[in-house]
This record gives sequence, structure tokens and C-alpha cells, in this order.
Amino acid sequence: MDRKHVVIIGGGFAGLAAAKRLANQPEVHVTLIDRRNHHLFQPLLYQVAMAGLSPAEIAAPIRSILSGAENSKVVCNEVKSLDTDRNLIVTNDGEISYDYLLMACGAKHGYFGNEHWEPFAPGLKTIEQATEIRRRVLGSFEKAEASNDSAERKKLLTFVVVGGGPTGVELAGAIGEMSRFTLSKDFRNIDPSSARVILVEAEPRILGMFDESLATKAMRFLEQLGVQIWTSSRVKNIDAEGVELADEKIQAGTVLWAAGVQASSLGKKCGFQCDRAGRIVVEKDLSVPDHSNIFVAGDQCSFIDPKSGKQLPGQAPVAAQQGRFVADTILQEVGGSTRSEFKYFDKGQMATIGRSRAIAEVGKFRFAGFFAWLVWLVVHIFFLTGFRNRFFVVLSWAWSFFTFRRGARLIVNKNWRFYETPENGPKQSGGPS
Amino acid sequence: MDRKHVVIIGGGFAGLAAAKRLANQPEVHVTLIDRRNHHLFQPLLYQVAMAGLSPAEIAAPIRSILSGAENSKVVCNEVKSLDTDRNLIVTNDGEISYDYLLMACGAKHGYFGNEHWEPFAPGLKTIEQATEIRRRVLGSFEKAEASNDSAERKKLLTFVVVGGGPTGVELAGAIGEMSRFTLSKDFRNIDPSSARVILVEAEPRILGMFDESLATKAMRFLEQLGVQIWTSSRVKNIDAEGVELADEKIQAGTVLWAAGVQASSLGKKCGFQCDRAGRIVVEKDLSVPDHSNIFVAGDQCSFIDPKSGKQLPGQAPVAAQQGRFVADTILQEVGGSTRSEFKYFDKGQMATIGRSRAIAEVGKFRFAGFFAWLVWLVVHIFFLTGFRNRFFVVLSWAWSFFTFRRGARLIVNKNWRFYETPENGPKQSGGPS
Repeated sequence: MDRKHVVIIGGGFAGLAAAKRLANQPEVHVTLIDRRNHHLFQPLLYQVAMAGLSPAEIAAPIRSILSGAENSKVVCNEVKSLDTDRNLIVTNDGEISYDYLLMACGAKHGYFGNEHWEPFAPGLKTIEQATEIRRRVLGSFEKAEASNDSAERKKLLTFVVVGGGPTGVELAGAIGEMSRFTLSKDFRNIDPSSARVILVEAEPRILGMFDESLATKAMRFLEQLGVQIWTSSRVKNIDAEGVELADEKIQAGTVLWAAGVQASSLGKKCGFQCDRAGRIVVEKDLSVPDHSNIFVAGDQCSFIDPKSGKQLPGQAPVAAQQGRFVADTILQEVGGSTRSEFKYFDKGQMATIGRSRAIAEVGKFRFAGFFAWLVWLVVHIFFLTGFRNRFFVVLSWAWSFFTFRRGARLIVNKNWRFYETPENGPKQSGGPS
Repeated sequence: MDRKHVVIIGGGFAGLAAAKRLANQPEVHVTLIDRRNHHLFQPLLYQVAMAGLSPAEIAAPIRSILSGAENSKVVCNEVKSLDTDRNLIVTNDGEISYDYLLMACGAKHGYFGNEHWEPFAPGLKTIEQATEIRRRVLGSFEKAEASNDSAERKKLLTFVVVGGGPTGVELAGAIGEMSRFTLSKDFRNIDPSSARVILVEAEPRILGMFDESLATKAMRFLEQLGVQIWTSSRVKNIDAEGVELADEKIQAGTVLWAAGVQASSLGKKCGFQCDRAGRIVVEKDLSVPDHSNIFVAGDQCSFIDPKSGKQLPGQAPVAAQQGRFVADTILQEVGGSTRSEFKYFDKGQMATIGRSRAIAEVGKFRFAGFFAWLVWLVVHIFFLTGFRNRFFVVLSWAWSFFTFRRGARLIVNKNWRFYETPENGPKQSGGPS
């Protein structure tokens, strides 16, 4: 039987959505390649970083998600390069040929050419980065408790989050909440609620993709959790001492990076046309120009929405819709039909602040506060892959909500000795290649 | 008020039991020092290694366990040495003086002078080691799936556990179960149930501390899970190729070490009299000879039980009883009473094999099979610290039991790229100092 071989690089939202759509379709067989053995529900990764959830609660083995797809194979390996002339991908373990290729390699954090900031201000894209951030935040409180120097204590209890998008807002809100509620009774020498949390944003306002009224509400919520919001503040430098802005230097023990992403380098390596963030510019059917059997979806894809005239954002719903569209396109083409154009169906967007507040925008409707948070909750639980994860996350949240505690306050890592100063910081293992 | 200062080194079962007993006692104030921020429920650590539980489910922040103890302080730091003349302990951050000292620093795995085996055969004492073992076991199946070489595949699917005590039995049983049930449908090129699991024991039989009839039952249970048991087999060498015995060499992709422990080196450093495993030999009241204000409890303590004439084993109940005894002794002495002698109350012992079998010995009663497993379950849940952990562990188990799945099948670590051969293996971060 002459079944077409579809190779999917990346088991994120885009790749997995495509693989699920192609599962058990008789016209194709599928190989999904990922460097990691697990699919990660990134929208909740900040909760792992903030000790609210365990890694296993928001991740599931790709192999196990696709175990019922008998035409599909999962390969845990790294893609080194493509040979588009011969329709081959090159991995660490040899070559794999494809009839159709879906590139869904995602993005990691980008530092706009200042990659040397990374050790001092880790981003949040992988589980390792999340546990590293957890280690730094909890470790700062521990070091402050042990310190007798008031200036050092102030520095250790200063947390700076760079980037006022949804991730930055979620991180800053969670640190504010943790210091005010979760940790309040556990220390003897410091008062965790005296911690300073500063959210730094280069633009004149935070949450630029949201309506201004909602962004203002989010600012109020953050301020109630003790978060200071510094807008129109561009970062000049980040080092072991803290963050340098145009006119001020913030001494900070912990700096987190939530500004800017950089797509996987595979696009550039292949000589495809990429935008500034390294995303591959695609045709209206999400294929690569002059390579009609290669598609790109998710954070790696640069696609201008004809409706809004804007670049589609790097969000899970975009990735999943693109992945499904590519799978459908392949199935149509194998079945003899012509291709259609990708249309994004915008279901709205959300961000959460602390333990019981959120903002949400659905079409013309706007919500803020507790009701929006309930909507956020239901949506995230609904889309979380795997019944077990869903069930356990609900329980973890219920427990945290009613007790104000966080269940996963472990400092673990190869570099768990936070009291030894990591001069150059631990090496990040993060981000797709 | 002249309260005595009690310093406890180590937040394991012994240290925590003492700290709980001393909590809010007006005659003393307490400082508990640990290098880690969390108390670890070690009896269930093998389940983290075997992807059944998440680290946060069997660990709790020491700070949070003791947050209600207003006379107690938790310090996250490493003890470098003691100055017994001046009653001081020396940490990375300076000195702390004590009136009474409890040393409860525990033990790590010992390789009988072959410490160079450690990279090839990690032990199981810390969360980092557990996730490392998880990475190796799951990674071996992934590598075997990717391999085209049948000899290499056979090597990768061979798992050797060295040491036939309870931990070795639990690890071997869990690997057997995982390969036969959990992973059976997830791979396309290999049959996980063809994996070989070999339990190597130097003595003529496994589970030497149990009655022979129970050990025989445990062997039957293990064999039903496909585990081969090689007794009277002494390990001559371990390297990247596998395990060398007196008369045979086993090519194995994964070797785990569950034989022999070595107590914290702090005892030797202080010049105290230690036994071969580095445990401090103590008086009948658990104090160090000639240092009546220094006590030792738990795995670091060498104590011959007058009843049995044998060394007390390195188990949680022993540690907890010793910790409580030391706390009581201090309170009595501060109150003007004389000291009594430590008496161990033996409640029995248990080991579990796979998902629904165990052996248990309580006084003269012996159980094996499903009922023993239920007893094991109830006892472990009862003693697990913290309501949340208990609740979530029950749910994780219920889920695994009814679905045959494992919830925490994540390959995470700094060195998560299991497909790159770690020539010298990752450095172990484990074990108390």
C-alpha cells in the first residue's frame, strides 16, 4: 500500500494537534519527532515555576498520548538539519525520509541580541527552566532569612519580572501572592510580605494585546498583590547585581525574563525566509514558499492574519488550529482535492492575576475579576491533555485555593545548593533547537 | 529567660521527630539545619524513580511543617564542622552555638571503596537521584526503540539492580511491572515486556532481614513480574558496559545500586568513634561518648539493640523513635530528671513488590500477597507527612492501580538529553554531607 509518510517535528500544541488528526487515517503513516519525551501544557508552566503544580501535572508522555494511533510512531530524537532536495530530515541517529513535513519546533525566549543576560534572567519555556525559577525564587527567601545584612536582604527580597505580557503578569502576580499569603508564617527573621515585586515593561502599558480597560483592571489587581508596575522602562543591562534601566538601577536577587521570543533556529539553517524573530514566513496554506510539501505551524510560523492584518500571536489555540489545518490539507491533497487557505478563528484571550482574578476578552465581551478567573479555570482545565492531569490539577488548585498553600515548594535541581552563588548562573537547557 | 538552645542537624525522620516533640516547649528553643528545604519521605522514593509519583507528593518544606512551632527556626544551610570544645557548629554562613546538639545527618549509598561505580550505578537517596534513575530507565526504552542493532537493543533492555534488600526488591519489581503493563502499548519497534530485569544479591538469599518463608514468597512475586534473581553473586566491577560478576558479565544499559550505605562524613570529621559504615557509636542514651550534650539519631547512629544483640536497621521507624527519645531526654534533663536508656519498639517490617503484592512481618505474624500490600498501603499513607501529600498519593495510586498507567513518566533533568551518551555519567549531587 502506498501510504504517504508524514513527518512532524515537535510535540507541542501544533504538532500534537496534527498527529491526533492524522491518527489512524489509512492514507498516511506518521512519525512525530521530539527531543523531549513529553508534551508540555505551556499555559500553566508558570504555576510549576511558582510551586503551585508539579511538572507531571502539566505534562504527558507523547508516546502515551498517541499510543492508540496505530499508524503513528514517536521518535525521541533531535533534528539536526533538513535535506529538502531529497526530502530527508537528519537526526542524531540517521536520516528519515518524508512525503510531507510539518515543522512545529516552537520558540524559546529571545534576548534581542543580549543572550549573555540569560544566566541572570531565565525565561520560562521548559520544565527545567520552571524548576530553576522555582529554585531561585524560594532560594531568595531562604538566603534572606539567613542574612544579617539589611542591604543584602533588601536585594534578595526584590524580584524583577521583565515583560508585561500575559506570562510576565502571571509570574509577577504569583510572586506577589506567594510572598503575601503562602510564605507569610514560615520565616522568623524576615517578613516575606515585605518583598518587592517589580514588573518592568518597555511599552507605555502592560498587556498590549488586550483592550486598555482590561489592562488597567489587571494593573489594579497586581497592585493589590503588592506588585509595582514600571511601564515605559527599557532594560539596558542585566547582571548578577540586578537590572539596569535608562535612569535607574534595581538591585535584585531574582530577575525573570518574559519579554520576546526567538523561534527555533531550524528555519534559518534551512535557508527559508524568516522574520526578525526567526519565524518562517509561510504561504496562505502554511506551506513554505517553493516547498509545497513542507508546512510550518505554531510559534515557528510567521503568518499575517488577513482579517486583522496582524501577525498571529504565539498562543496555544493558534498552534492547535494550524496543526489541524495542516493535517486536513495533507489528507485533502492525498484524497485528490486542492488546498484551501488557513483562517484563524479567534476565540479570545485571557490572563490570570494571583489566585482568583483574571481578565478575559471574547469577541466584544470583556470580563475582569473573579468571574473571568472562573472562565480561565474552566477553559484551561478543559484543554489540559489527559484525564489524569486534568483531575490532579483541579485538586491541586482546590487545595491551594482553600488553604493558601502551595503544594510543590521543593527546591530541586542539579544545582540545588542555592546558597552557593552561581557566579555565571546555571546553563539553561531550554528551548527547541 | 534562660532557655536552652537545641540545634538539630538534618530534617529527616529523626531530626523532624525531635523538632516536633520540642515544638513550643517553653524550656528550649530549637534551630533545625538542613541543606535541603524539604523533608523527604524516603520509603516512597522508589516510586518517584519509577514514575509513579511526583517529587512534591512525597516531600514537604521543612519550614512549612514547623511553621506552627514558635520556638523553632529552620536554617537552610550546610554544616561544615563542629567545635565541640566551644559548643559551636560551623556552617557556610558562620557559627551557631548550642546547648544540646542532635546529629541526624543520615546516610548515602556506599560502594565499599568502589566509589567510581557511582556514575554507572546511581543509588536512591535524594529526589535528584530519583529523577535521574527515572531518566535512565525511561531513556533506555526510548533508545532501544530508536536502535536498529539487536545486540544494542538487548543491552538497553537489560536492567540490573544490585542489592536484594527492600529497596532493591521494590525497584526491580517496579521495573518489571512497568515493562509488562505500563509501557506495553506505547512502542512500535520494541516489545517492552521482553525487557530483562536482574536482581543481583551477594548473599545466598534476598531480604535477609525477613523470615525465609516471606523472602521465598517475595521471590515468587518477583519472578511473576519477570524479574530474574541471582543470589550468591558478588559484583566485581561496574562500568558503562554493565555489571561484571565472578563468572559472568551482564551487558546492561541501566544499573541501579541498592546495596550498602555510608553514613554522613561529619562523624568521622569530628573524631568520634565510628563503625565501618561511618555511623557514630553511641551510649545507651544515644549520646556521643564523652560529649553528653551531643546526641546521634537515625541512619547516622550505630546502636546495638540489647534485646536482639543486633545493629538497629536504617529505617524510618528507628529514626523517628530515636529522634523523639532524644527530645524527651533533653526535656527531662532540663527539667532536672536523670536520663533513661533508649529502647526500640519493633513494630515490624514490610516490603512491596509491584502494584499489589507485599510481604509484612509484625511480631510473630507474617503476611504475603494482596492483604500485606493493603497493610503496606495504609501504613505508608498514615505516616506520610502532611495532609496534602497523603491525599494526592492516594489518588495517584488509585489512578495507577485501576489504569495500569504511571502519572509521572517525564524525562526531566539538566541532562535530559538521554540520547547523548553520558560518558562519565552525571555527577551525583546526593546524600547528606
